[in-house]
Amino acid sequence: MVDLTYKHAGPAKTAACARTVAKAVLGQERLARSLFDELREKTSRGKGIFRDAYGDGENAAHRLVAATAQELALEVEHDAAANTYMTMRGEDRNAPRVVIGSHLDSVADGGNFDGAAGVVAGLVALAALETAGFRPACDITVMAIRAEESVWFTTTYFGSRAALGKLPPEALGNLRRVDSARTLAEHLASSGGDWRALRSGRPHLDPTTIRAFLEVHIEQGPVLESEKLPIGLVTGIRGNYRRPAAKVHGAYSHCGGVPRGYRRDSVVAASEFVQALDRLWEQWERDGKDMAFTVGKLFTDGSRHALTKIPGEVTFSLDVRSIDPDRLAELEQRVETIAAEVAERRGVAFELGPVTRADVGKVDPAILADLIDGAKQLGIPTRRIVSGASHDAAAFAQAGIPMGMIFVRNANGSHNPDEDMEVEDLLEASRLLTWWLVSRCSE
Amino acid sequence: MVDLTYKHAGPAKTAACARTVAKAVLGQERLARSLFDELREKTSRGKGIFRDAYGDGENAAHRLVAATAQELALEVEHDAAANTYMTMRGEDRNAPRVVIGSHLDSVADGGNFDGAAGVVAGLVALAALETAGFRPACDITVMAIRAEESVWFTTTYFGSRAALGKLPPEALGNLRRVDSARTLAEHLASSGGDWRALRSGRPHLDPTTIRAFLEVHIEQGPVLESEKLPIGLVTGIRGNYRRPAAKVHGAYSHCGGVPRGYRRDSVVAASEFVQALDRLWEQWERDGKDMAFTVGKLFTDGSRHALTKIPGEVTFSLDVRSIDPDRLAELEQRVETIAAEVAERRGVAFELGPVTRADVGKVDPAILADLIDGAKQLGIPTRRIVSGASHDAAAFAQAGIPMGMIFVRNANGSHNPDEDMEVEDLLEASRLLTWWLVSRCSE
Repeated sequence: MVDLTYKHAGPAKTAACARTVAKAVLGQERLARSLFDELREKTSRGKGIFRDAYGDGENAAHRLVAATAQELALEVEHDAAANTYMTMRGEDRNAPRVVIGSHLDSVADGGNFDGAAGVVAGLVALAALETAGFRPACDITVMAIRAEESVWFTTTYFGSRAALGKLPPEALGNLRRVDSARTLAEHLASSGGDWRALRSGRPHLDPTTIRAFLEVHIEQGPVLESEKLPIGLVTGIRGNYRRPAAKVHGAYSHCGGVPRGYRRDSVVAASEFVQALDRLWEQWERDGKDMAFTVGKLFTDGSRHALTKIPGEVTFSLDVRSIDPDRLAELEQRVETIAAEVAERRGVAFELGPVTRADVGKVDPAILADLIDGAKQLGIPTRRIVSGASHDAAAFAQAGIPMGMIFVRNANGSHNPDEDMEVEDLLEASRLLTWWLVSRCSE
Repeated sequence: MVDLTYKHAGPAKTAACARTVAKAVLGQERLARSLFDELREKTSRGKGIFRDAYGDGENAAHRLVAATAQELALEVEHDAAANTYMTMRGEDRNAPRVVIGSHLDSVADGGNFDGAAGVVAGLVALAALETAGFRPACDITVMAIRAEESVWFTTTYFGSRAALGKLPPEALGNLRRVDSARTLAEHLASSGGDWRALRSGRPHLDPTTIRAFLEVHIEQGPVLESEKLPIGLVTGIRGNYRRPAAKVHGAYSHCGGVPRGYRRDSVVAASEFVQALDRLWEQWERDGKDMAFTVGKLFTDGSRHALTKIPGEVTFSLDVRSIDPDRLAELEQRVETIAAEVAERRGVAFELGPVTRADVGKVDPAILADLIDGAKQLGIPTRRIVSGASHDAAAFAQAGIPMGMIFVRNANGSHNPDEDMEVEDLLEASRLLTWWLVSRCSE
């Protein structure tokens, strides 16, 4: 058994420990590659990945990681929401444990790495610790999470919130998967979940028994790629304010006959709204105030619009984000003010529709400091980075569990078949993760 | 027989003639009302009007006006395109004739007055002349025109252009009605048309045998309504430049992860394009330069867009109009320049796609002067007005025939079931039209 208890040791011992960790992690390259290859083989249709939540694709992914965990002699469990827990036993099984997790579902026609990378990174770390003969002081669990993507049940990080008992039981009964129209109960039944237990609302995870939650995830933007950095250290997860189905009501009319001042053109109004938000973002960017907004859907009514008709209605979605809770509240006000101003100027009405909000996900400063320190010691080039996207980690942070995240460089964005992460970069994230586990679970 | 040859007569005789015309026209109120009522009864589905080109609705309308014309002892003819000609015989049947016309088709779920008003106004005028015992010097033909609306065969004023021999025979073979997918030949066959004769390209109307073309049409905008004027005298018909299916190509990406500067957001780009055109219009309006633009359709891709995805593609239609041919050419350049500037700034590509153009329709200055003079003599309050929309009259003007148009006040715009024209206002247009016929066809 190799001595990895480097704490309170001198620099020479620390360097030796770093080398041991590096060797043990890099030795798992084949494991990592075969997991990604098998995931792709089992869950792709043509080029795109389909790991549908509580469906064939996600189920296949859970079976694969559970089988791998068994080969690695980890303890395998499931909860009522069919999340998979793969645990390396600690010296003291009653001590608060560390959970490393991410999700195994993908969007439809997605890529192979969004979500799965975090589960693979966790299994690589545990396999490396095992190889190196490290026995942690507490349990370390890799959690493969269900249904993180909001596309399936129009609810975000479902599996995490279910595990933490954060889903209101009264909301569960109405959930149907958007594409299949089958109920959550039906989907759960065919995925090994337990509908009754889930609806009881009893959490599987008690936050007081979890020391920390760490998530490795591909970066969904181009920052690490363009700055040539293998990993990034997340400083926080943006909260959001959403209007999934907003409308602009104008008036349809023959386009030839209506002078500019008489028009109630919903497309001109919607485009003015979008431009106003874009100018606001440009200004805030200059002022160093964090925000982002996206109008992902915007469409005139296909049954009524025409080349020669002033468009009387536009439907659009709005997603607004910020890392700062106060700015997020300010943005919500700004959206309403801009809509009111455009409505006044253009003779239209904005119906912003149902609203959803997600709190900012706070990264634990001590974990972030550890990771910064660890990357320096291991010689891994990195930077601090804001997570613009939501992640399961946010649910853990909101439950009061100290949380940290590592991003892995990835080309071509995420949620598409062209996601392009190098396994070498994932192994760098696992190396830092393993180093952190050695440092924090050997006390 | 009443003497309506008021030319070269003194003011007293002119006033007497005006009273005779007024009485004769107002006496046709029942004819006008019953025509509109029967049209509505035969061609409505629920509230909306469906006079589909070369289909049941339009065919029923043609049968109705032809039957009415026969009751009025007019000569009834059809051409290869199944246009209906209803002629009051003149003293000299070889003298160049006057044609009064408009179309009988409507858009799907349209209103009862767009197009049909002009045919009714013409029949009212001829019935009034007959009642007054007026015998014109030349033939006066009311032409009920086919397929003016571009929605049916994606081509504008088809019937007029067919009658004038302005449809390239090679284009005819490919035409299918958008909704039925049946060929033009099939539709013609079931509407009394003659496919072979049409394809020969021989015009039914020889421009040298037509002295003038006059069209009465409802105003498709709110100007007359808001200025409380029963009719308007058209100064010209705007030409247009169209891009029916333009696209903005950006890049899809997860919306959370991509900073502003890295985005290639097709919705932000499209909205910037729309706003730039709107600012141009605002400026030109201040400078007294005529233009209008409409983006009637604008939509992200329903199979790929999502609340949390930067939109990678937008499709939109563009219709740009001006009464001035030079301005229209300038606008075409401006559209391309704006698209190029936005593309550069936003990292997207504009694919403007197929282009169509319609020339400006010039109103004959002498006819306009006559109508202005006539309205004054008859005491009908009116104003000059630009026709923003295209009309059959433009096809006649482009064939070199002196053309004039009278607009009738109409509430709620056109191309919708709420078109709201008062028969009293239509009779004012017929009164002016009849006055003009008396003035110009008694020589």
